[in-house]
Amino acid sequence: MEKLEELYEGKAKRIYKTEEDDKVIVEYKDDATAFNGEKKGQIVEKGKLNAEISTIFFELLEDNDIPTHLIERLNDTDVLAKKLDIILVEVVMRNIAAGSLAKRLGLEEGTELSQPILEFYYKDDDLGDPMINEYHIQAEEIADPNDLEVIKDLAFKINEILVEFLADKGIDLVDFKLEFGKGTDGEIYLGDEISPDTCRFWDAQSKKKLDKDRFRRDLGEVEGAYQEILKRLNL
Amino acid sequence: MEKLEELYEGKAKRIYKTEEDDKVIVEYKDDATAFNGEKKGQIVEKGKLNAEISTIFFELLEDNDIPTHLIERLNDTDVLAKKLDIILVEVVMRNIAAGSLAKRLGLEEGTELSQPILEFYYKDDDLGDPMINEYHIQAEEIADPNDLEVIKDLAFKINEILVEFLADKGIDLVDFKLEFGKGTDGEIYLGDEISPDTCRFWDAQSKKKLDKDRFRRDLGEVEGAYQEILKRLNL
Repeated sequence: MEKLEELYEGKAKRIYKTEEDDKVIVEYKDDATAFNGEKKGQIVEKGKLNAEISTIFFELLEDNDIPTHLIERLNDTDVLAKKLDIILVEVVMRNIAAGSLAKRLGLEEGTELSQPILEFYYKDDDLGDPMINEYHIQAEEIADPNDLEVIKDLAFKINEILVEFLADKGIDLVDFKLEFGKGTDGEIYLGDEISPDTCRFWDAQSKKKLDKDRFRRDLGEVEGAYQEILKRLNL
Repeated sequence: MEKLEELYEGKAKRIYKTEEDDKVIVEYKDDATAFNGEKKGQIVEKGKLNAEISTIFFELLEDNDIPTHLIERLNDTDVLAKKLDIILVEVVMRNIAAGSLAKRLGLEEGTELSQPILEFYYKDDDLGDPMINEYHIQAEEIADPNDLEVIKDLAFKINEILVEFLADKGIDLVDFKLEFGKGTDGEIYLGDEISPDTCRFWDAQSKKKLDKDRFRRDLGEVEGAYQEILKRLNL
């Protein structure tokens, strides 16, 4: 399968047409951004690392009956995927307080939540991806109510699968972002990626951050953290 | 019924004990604040106006089978009410985009919503009353899930009653905030107040603001707006 014209360039990926209408090639870039694009940089080999990490997670999810866009990894940075019509709601799942949740609720970073918290964000860069609720989504017709029920159910299932898998690798899954879309068959699939760009991963013992917070907060050893995640996933 | 010791002083009201354990006296103040207390002032006769306006709304709601804390208005500024254990979730109902919703969703102020939007805010001044969702409420045990279902149901009913009542008076109910609490009998009652301090009221024809936005945004004619609302309610 070959890359044809570029359909879309995002902050961390490019999406290309292929000869088949229902398939795209996702190319992972080394570019890193934070704070809605205000901070920009590159992380050495991030494209390759995230393509590999995300593929491992998506294969794990497929094995656990979660429908995902993954078809196959083609090479270091390129992944063949089902073409999705992305739903403009980002789903954030949280198990441990960090980032905006810690601030919002006045919790110390690292506080374990009594149950997972799901948050919806409106995928709109111009608005800074604001937090929204189901009434906003309905009134503004951002997503279909039935689709939203499917998405919530999938998000909690995905969280359970990932938490258990990562615990085995000595990693706390603090929180992560998911995006869903509709395939050409009208079904809902998990899209986008699952990687240190989109998750907070902490070492279960030392609580060392092994994710993009090292870039966001200038903590150093950014590539090392991404490499460490890949190493543990392959254990 | 006489005021005994002060139980609590809020931004716009003082609450006093009475001889009866399950009843309090709510005294409405002329003090006005905005932006989480950053802007402070006084509005002439606001205490009296809001005590009267809120009593009219609460009587209307009682007549429509909404349980409220209202027992009776005692004098210009004082209202006898059931003592409530306030639930720390503020409910905002919205019919027309304004204020933070217009900003959040990038809507022009005045855009009519296709259906009412309900929002939850965590009643916590130190945190700036952040917007939260039902998962935050559950995980942090801010309110009981069953109570929350009752509250949502009441909020939509109250919205319907008020919208219809106000339309008759030539007033658009843009949005408003509700607070609920548990009585000593364990039942849920509407508490706090419904007034130009807690609602956005627009003249249905001219769209002139007849509420606290005149104070927040330094639009002048603040007392006049509160008086106009009272006048129309009494028509």
